[in-house]
Amino acid sequence: MADLLWPGDERAAEVFTDAALLDAMVAVEQAWLDALAGAGIAESTPLAGIVGATDLDRIATGAEAGGNPVIGLVALLRERTGSRWVHRGLTSQDVLDTALVLCLDDAVVRVREGLRQQAAALVRLARVHRGTLMAGRTLTQHAVPITFGLKAATWLQGAAAGADRLARCPSLPAQLGGAAGTLAAPTQLAGSVEAAQAVVADASARLGLAVAAPWHTERSVLTEHADALVGCADAWGRIAADVALLSRPEIGELREAAGGGSSTMPGKANPVLSVLLRRHALAAPALAATLHTAASAYVDERPDGAWHAEWDTLRTLARRSVVAASQAADLLEGLVVDASRMAARAAEADETLRAEQVSMGGGDAPYLGATDRIIDLALDRARTVWKDL
Amino acid sequence: MADLLWPGDERAAEVFTDAALLDAMVAVEQAWLDALAGAGIAESTPLAGIVGATDLDRIATGAEAGGNPVIGLVALLRERTGSRWVHRGLTSQDVLDTALVLCLDDAVVRVREGLRQQAAALVRLARVHRGTLMAGRTLTQHAVPITFGLKAATWLQGAAAGADRLARCPSLPAQLGGAAGTLAAPTQLAGSVEAAQAVVADASARLGLAVAAPWHTERSVLTEHADALVGCADAWGRIAADVALLSRPEIGELREAAGGGSSTMPGKANPVLSVLLRRHALAAPALAATLHTAASAYVDERPDGAWHAEWDTLRTLARRSVVAASQAADLLEGLVVDASRMAARAAEADETLRAEQVSMGGGDAPYLGATDRIIDLALDRARTVWKDL
Amino acid sequence: MADLLWPGDERAAEVFTDAALLDAMVAVEQAWLDALAGAGIAESTPLAGIVGATDLDRIATGAEAGGNPVIGLVALLRERTGSRWVHRGLTSQDVLDTALVLCLDDAVVRVREGLRQQAAALVRLARVHRGTLMAGRTLTQHAVPITFGLKAATWLQGAAAGADRLARCPSLPAQLGGAAGTLAAPTQLAGSVEAAQAVVADASARLGLAVAAPWHTERSVLTEHADALVGCADAWGRIAADVALLSRPEIGELREAAGGGSSTMPGKANPVLSVLLRRHALAAPALAATLHTAASAYVDERPDGAWHAEWDTLRTLARRSVVAASQAADLLEGLVVDASRMAARAAEADETLRAEQVSMGGGDAPYLGATDRIIDLALDRARTVWKDL
Amino acid sequence: MADLLWPGDERAAEVFTDAALLDAMVAVEQAWLDALAGAGIAESTPLAGIVGATDLDRIATGAEAGGNPVIGLVALLRERTGSRWVHRGLTSQDVLDTALVLCLDDAVVRVREGLRQQAAALVRLARVHRGTLMAGRTLTQHAVPITFGLKAATWLQGAAAGADRLARCPSLPAQLGGAAGTLAAPTQLAGSVEAAQAVVADASARLGLAVAAPWHTERSVLTEHADALVGCADAWGRIAADVALLSRPEIGELREAAGGGSSTMPGKANPVLSVLLRRHALAAPALAATLHTAASAYVDERPDGAWHAEWDTLRTLARRSVVAASQAADLLEGLVVDASRMAARAAEADETLRAEQVSMGGGDAPYLGATDRIIDLALDRARTVWKDL
Repeated sequence: MADLLWPGDERAAEVFTDAALLDAMVAVEQAWLDALAGAGIAESTPLAGIVGATDLDRIATGAEAGGNPVIGLVALLRERTGSRWVHRGLTSQDVLDTALVLCLDDAVVRVREGLRQQAAALVRLARVHRGTLMAGRTLTQHAVPITFGLKAATWLQGAAAGADRLARCPSLPAQLGGAAGTLAAPTQLAGSVEAAQAVVADASARLGLAVAAPWHTERSVLTEHADALVGCADAWGRIAADVALLSRPEIGELREAAGGGSSTMPGKANPVLSVLLRRHALAAPALAATLHTAASAYVDERPDGAWHAEWDTLRTLARRSVVAASQAADLLEGLVVDASRMAARAAEADETLRAEQVSMGGGDAPYLGATDRIIDLALDRARTVWKDL
Repeated sequence: MADLLWPGDERAAEVFTDAALLDAMVAVEQAWLDALAGAGIAESTPLAGIVGATDLDRIATGAEAGGNPVIGLVALLRERTGSRWVHRGLTSQDVLDTALVLCLDDAVVRVREGLRQQAAALVRLARVHRGTLMAGRTLTQHAVPITFGLKAATWLQGAAAGADRLARCPSLPAQLGGAAGTLAAPTQLAGSVEAAQAVVADASARLGLAVAAPWHTERSVLTEHADALVGCADAWGRIAADVALLSRPEIGELREAAGGGSSTMPGKANPVLSVLLRRHALAAPALAATLHTAASAYVDERPDGAWHAEWDTLRTLARRSVVAASQAADLLEGLVVDASRMAARAAEADETLRAEQVSMGGGDAPYLGATDRIIDLALDRARTVWKDL
Repeated sequence: MADLLWPGDERAAEVFTDAALLDAMVAVEQAWLDALAGAGIAESTPLAGIVGATDLDRIATGAEAGGNPVIGLVALLRERTGSRWVHRGLTSQDVLDTALVLCLDDAVVRVREGLRQQAAALVRLARVHRGTLMAGRTLTQHAVPITFGLKAATWLQGAAAGADRLARCPSLPAQLGGAAGTLAAPTQLAGSVEAAQAVVADASARLGLAVAAPWHTERSVLTEHADALVGCADAWGRIAADVALLSRPEIGELREAAGGGSSTMPGKANPVLSVLLRRHALAAPALAATLHTAASAYVDERPDGAWHAEWDTLRTLARRSVVAASQAADLLEGLVVDASRMAARAAEADETLRAEQVSMGGGDAPYLGATDRIIDLALDRARTVWKDL
Repeated sequence: MADLLWPGDERAAEVFTDAALLDAMVAVEQAWLDALAGAGIAESTPLAGIVGATDLDRIATGAEAGGNPVIGLVALLRERTGSRWVHRGLTSQDVLDTALVLCLDDAVVRVREGLRQQAAALVRLARVHRGTLMAGRTLTQHAVPITFGLKAATWLQGAAAGADRLARCPSLPAQLGGAAGTLAAPTQLAGSVEAAQAVVADASARLGLAVAAPWHTERSVLTEHADALVGCADAWGRIAADVALLSRPEIGELREAAGGGSSTMPGKANPVLSVLLRRHALAAPALAATLHTAASAYVDERPDGAWHAEWDTLRTLARRSVVAASQAADLLEGLVVDASRMAARAAEADETLRAEQVSMGGGDAPYLGATDRIIDLALDRARTVWKDL
């Protein structure tokens, strides 16, 4: 699976595809059935293999009638297994929300892997280029000197902030609350509130998800994850903006390992990973904004449109985040630093770069201030976030 | 093709799918080749059937290397036809932009068909219910009386505004300008500027698109169409908000022809088309905003990310617009109006609904002001937009 | 009036300030009163000078109680004039919407003036630099040669598209419909629908606004203007992105007439107008998106929040557009073009810039294709949009 | 100070006004000066009262020249104090970023106070109405029974999530890094990196802000706070959507303590606080999206527009958050619950509300499942977030 209009999409492989979502929905039904069975309420039935890729079109096409794909899936599962226990006690939102969470979790794991790889590359760059002098630039103009290690360290701060923020997000919880989030049907089935809660806890554990009160109308767990993913996109977008700029032929201080070619201009090497990362950064904030707009429109015990607006929006953001995390790792691992060109530029711009120093009454001493210390702070922070770096 | 997470997606069928996009890109290459051949510059080769659905994954997966899917497509076309003329004189952006425009045009045609169907239904509703008294509501509270025909007329104004705005959009142009929008390669091939322009005009005509100066970095033709599509989403969202509200059991003045069912609650009839239309309206504005953000970042003769951010964003907006246009038509064609319930409500709320009238010194005369005239104005406008209504 | 956090804000002077809005609301009340008087329904009273800047805080602070500032304004006007006719037949939304439209109109006029000035400067740049060779750049890398006149011509296309789009927007209409858009109260006052419509037409004419059916819940006139203003922001953002880039010391092909200084670095000349234009382009799309989100939530005959979300959002977008239009005009009028540096760069990059030409079998002829013709097309278009350029 | 177009604005009083921002900038300059003096580097000078409200226009109007208001402020401070030490070692971004943080901190404190008040009201509502039966509604239709206490408990979960998220945000840090974030000038002044760091730590402490590595280009501290504020807006928007709906005359289960009036319809009581909260929720997500768009465009050591786009956007979001926090507290403290109307509705809808129960084979037992337990979970969580509730 790949998307013609989102180059690099194949990096996300099966994360959050329709097939993955279907598997996740079935996994939720299975976990619930097993938990009911474990409590002696129902007989379990294996659901694996009962529906598959060939059913996707039928389920998707049927989704409009009830407004979501769960109703059709449940009908198929019941029909093919003959089990009357499938989905018993659940509501569509339980199954779809929990499946979304499972797919989101899968995406977040990969984003965090990507961040870790990026951090490893950035730690290396910050160390190797700790003293690689280059022109600092503000508002497009030469300002005061920095080192490339410092720039890498500020990029590392961004990656660390992204990882840290993802880590601080609330655990992803299962959604198991029944029609209006009261656990009425599960309680009816299990015979008591305690027993119903035990079934919920068991099903959640089977799915590897946190147990939480029903969050049918309180969507902060989704928006907070989405915001954190956009925070990562920001960090990658900033790196990409710097790389794209510093790869310009007039500057030439950085270069991607393998530049992209052209359909007509031989020899052209475009900073293609940077371009694709910037693309993601340009498009991501609006997706999270949509999730917030939806979250605030959660009227009633299930809203009239806001829930439905989340699904594909979340999927798009999550999947693209996986792609970008991987692209950013590749970009940084392969980044080619032209230290001599940086030095030449700094020498050439020496008068400008020293203007502040002169105005401060400074002499010829290097004017790098606490650059070294600030790099160390970033390295320390990275070791806090990624213990084994 | 259908999307598990966007119920109703199948209504857009093949509009703007990867396969449609591939066909459109091939059509662009063919039109250019034929135009070159028509000018005696190249030999043409039939490209139909040379690449197809089975190549999609290969082309998509290869797109990252060069940053877009055109490079891989051209390589395949050249390899399989042996023609050295394929793509000669074009740049990737020419092919992709023109293909996007072809797919967008396809979507817009269907949206306009949907709007026309909606208008026909709304004209009927406005006429039939011209005098169907109901409570006017402002800020959630009963205000003064209106008729349901008036409400339908204001919905019709929205549909007319959407159609009118789409009609006022600039014609969709081909993009044929070469590497930096100078027509350098076509001019080289054709031998003169005039000859190159003639090839451009011929190729554009073969594609049924307008001829325009290269718009590689001036994206208003895309943003203006996107904005117009969001304008339509607004109109449908507003209708859906009214229908969803007036379908509430406590109000019960409207009802969708076929309400959606529930996975657990027998007999429940949800206003599912309204819900799905509201979903689209919640998500659409952010997509157009992304296109604007991209449009303003078009640095250089082709930008470093802004172009790439447009493709899937535009596709998503266009495809969802086709879905929603069709859903809105169905919603309105099947809308069930409970005139007696409206009347009963208006009678029940009579004192409130007359408060302004009383304060104006009015008596017992109907207090509908220019309702009839305003309905006529909407019907007149509809006939201006859709001549045959 | 100026805004500490939006440098350049003073360029918008009094456009759409609280004071201007207050004046506009009073003008609406006056026009209505005069129209009623003209029809022999009421006695008119001069409202000019009855409320003023010193009342702003009182009215603003009182606005929460009723949810909008009209209620408090009307109370003051009635109290101070003793007239019982003030606001008679109107609803708050009539007054506020019409006042918003008056302020928006004022902003649009200034934006169009700014666009005209920009166009004049761009026409000059395109003519003077028609043959000024420079490197064309795509995806940050050197591509094929262009001229600076061509770049100016594509900027001009953007400005023309912006102006053209504003010109194609529907005329700004007065909002005069009464409590639920039925003209019930005006009809009651005037004695007949025809007489009420005549009062509406007269009041609209007094305000210089178009007559339209009530658009209390059909907001496309606002969203279409907002979208057009964002289209202008896109055009200016793109120009600014190019200027900021080409002003970099490593490139140095353009320079703002008066660069901005630094609080610590003597001699630094930042491309400050470009920076401030890019700022606007970054922030504008989200504002229009909010207006669309609101427009689609217009439930009932007046909605529960969507209307209120528009006011300040529209004001912010309009006012910033005035600022940016003026900044863009100054930027372009003062733009310093270093043609020799452009030429030197093109010479230096000659091999790269000729790579496509060589691959096309071309020789040493200039490789500018239809550059001259494309410049002429842009100049022609400008003359269509601005007849006297 | 109040805003005519944002009713309720006066609730934010002086938070983040231009005057507050000016004070904050002066406080930053003072803290730095005092820290330099404390280290024996400079003589301090009292800056309080040196500039004030009357200077606002001059500073604001002068801000365009350098692109920010700091340059003009520093010139005034130096001119009026005669001190050459003012601002020595700082860059404009240090002063403006730290001032923004001080104002943001002020706003966040008030938002948290508001959340606490809301929580207190919600705890009361959840307790008092623990057993107040009402119809649960999904997709606009009656679903299964809930209690109003449960609804209040889910609202409480939203408020707790908002407060919890704000509490988990990184501490707001001072920005003190010099021209390119290297502390070059402070190091030059202080004589060593250690001494410069000590000055930074001292100045930060004087401002009550955290010490952090320079974050000139790593903006996650701002975006994370902004996202958290939008998370609060979501929570309030959802409450407001429920209240506005349940206040409709056809439902009548809730009522705001003091409804808003109408300019023409006597006796009308609109749910005005709900309306104004929904307004904020509609507009907030786009503001945070702009901050993210800016954050990802932070090229160089200070970017060409992205920084400038943040200022007013952040201010608007923060100030409106303060207003909404206070409005939400008032809304909840005064909320009137019509338990008998809820009961009557539930009785009337009994057959529908029992449909699931019947299909589950249930009898006449109350069908509220774990409602009580879920309320307790929300109360427990509230006590975790607000220890003294």
